[in-house]
Amino acid sequence: MSKAKAGSGDAPEQDAGVRGGLVQQEIFEQATRLFAERGYAGTSFQDIADAVGLTRPALYHYVKSKNELLAKLVEQITEVAAVDIAAIAERVELGATERIREVVRLMVRRMGEDGERFRLLLRSEADLPEAVAASYEVNRRAVLRSLTEVIEQGVERGEFRPVTPAVAALGTLGIVNWVAWWYHPGSHFDLDSVSLELADMAVHGLAAEEGRQASSTPLDAVRSLRREVDRLEGLLERERR
Amino acid sequence: MSKAKAGSGDAPEQDAGVRGGLVQQEIFEQATRLFAERGYAGTSFQDIADAVGLTRPALYHYVKSKNELLAKLVEQITEVAAVDIAAIAERVELGATERIREVVRLMVRRMGEDGERFRLLLRSEADLPEAVAASYEVNRRAVLRSLTEVIEQGVERGEFRPVTPAVAALGTLGIVNWVAWWYHPGSHFDLDSVSLELADMAVHGLAAEEGRQASSTPLDAVRSLRREVDRLEGLLERERR
Repeated sequence: MSKAKAGSGDAPEQDAGVRGGLVQQEIFEQATRLFAERGYAGTSFQDIADAVGLTRPALYHYVKSKNELLAKLVEQITEVAAVDIAAIAERVELGATERIREVVRLMVRRMGEDGERFRLLLRSEADLPEAVAASYEVNRRAVLRSLTEVIEQGVERGEFRPVTPAVAALGTLGIVNWVAWWYHPGSHFDLDSVSLELADMAVHGLAAEEGRQASSTPLDAVRSLRREVDRLEGLLERERR
Repeated sequence: MSKAKAGSGDAPEQDAGVRGGLVQQEIFEQATRLFAERGYAGTSFQDIADAVGLTRPALYHYVKSKNELLAKLVEQITEVAAVDIAAIAERVELGATERIREVVRLMVRRMGEDGERFRLLLRSEADLPEAVAASYEVNRRAVLRSLTEVIEQGVERGEFRPVTPAVAALGTLGIVNWVAWWYHPGSHFDLDSVSLELADMAVHGLAAEEGRQASSTPLDAVRSLRREVDRLEGLLERERR
């Protein structure tokens, strides 16, 4: 609030820079809160200035428009997600299963911690200025492409069932994204356990019944054969009774 | 549009009733479209009257307020879903797997056909009048409870892995609900195939690894044995090369 006003005057250069950063952070946080509460269209530049405790011209010194704030918000959510997911997807030394597990865990944690911003983004889709909408679209597609590619590789290697990779990727994103609507910080669910459970669910939803063994050694295959024989024996015994 | 105006005058009672129904349907459709385009707060009673081609007083003859329309919209989406899902959940003669499959298929088809209304509902959550919000909450909880109970039964019977039923239910709802954001009528995906794939994904995401085979016949077990032998053969051949 008064951090901003204190920024003018006789402080050394470096401190002013730090304070400037704090002001920007405060502006960003207040804008996010207002957009979430009133919608993007229902929030004015003046509202943001009031919330931060700045005059309109002083706020203008830090940001040029509401659009700029919305753009930053979109960037923080979607660009960071796209980059992080691409980085996991590229680690081909891991199996597809491990990469899907990592992506789901990471995204569930973020959705759980910061679901309000994600919901705000989806609610504001119609209000996004053209350039922001374009960047949002690019990142959204990048996330989908990364996930789709990992699933494709999983299907090829026999780790996953023969799913349609894009549909399976969208189903997986559903498990993740919906967290923004039901998990609330301070919920009685533990976010780490939730992220592990949902990652398990996503991975099992894709896993090949046969494929899991397909990558195994002859010893694994023999063990699996023995399990099948045991099962057959059990079934035949049950039939005889 | 002019259906409404034509409704006054010398038509027999029954026809007037039919036309009244058509007008109400038209009002509802136009209101839904406007709420979706401009948001609930951004749509006035006059906007709705204009869209239907009625005067404000004439519209008032059919509906008393925007709230009434929003309430009907919420009811159509959430109450119908809650009732239908409860009906499937109660069919205990089916296994948990079959019931989850049915629920997911049904809901994915609805989300695919009518995703815009669902997104509108979520976007309007903050604007819902108290009574509507309460009914929405009741139905939302009923859907979650139905799904959670089916999953609990599946875990007890050994059909499903030992998941936390509520978390797994929310994950399953994520697969379903997210469809509203990515499937668009006229998309190159076929909605029936999508609903089958996502139902498969949800069911595999829950299924016990052993449980699936435990319910099979000796013939299934022998077929599975043959697959294991084939796989062993393949592995040994690969090792020799």
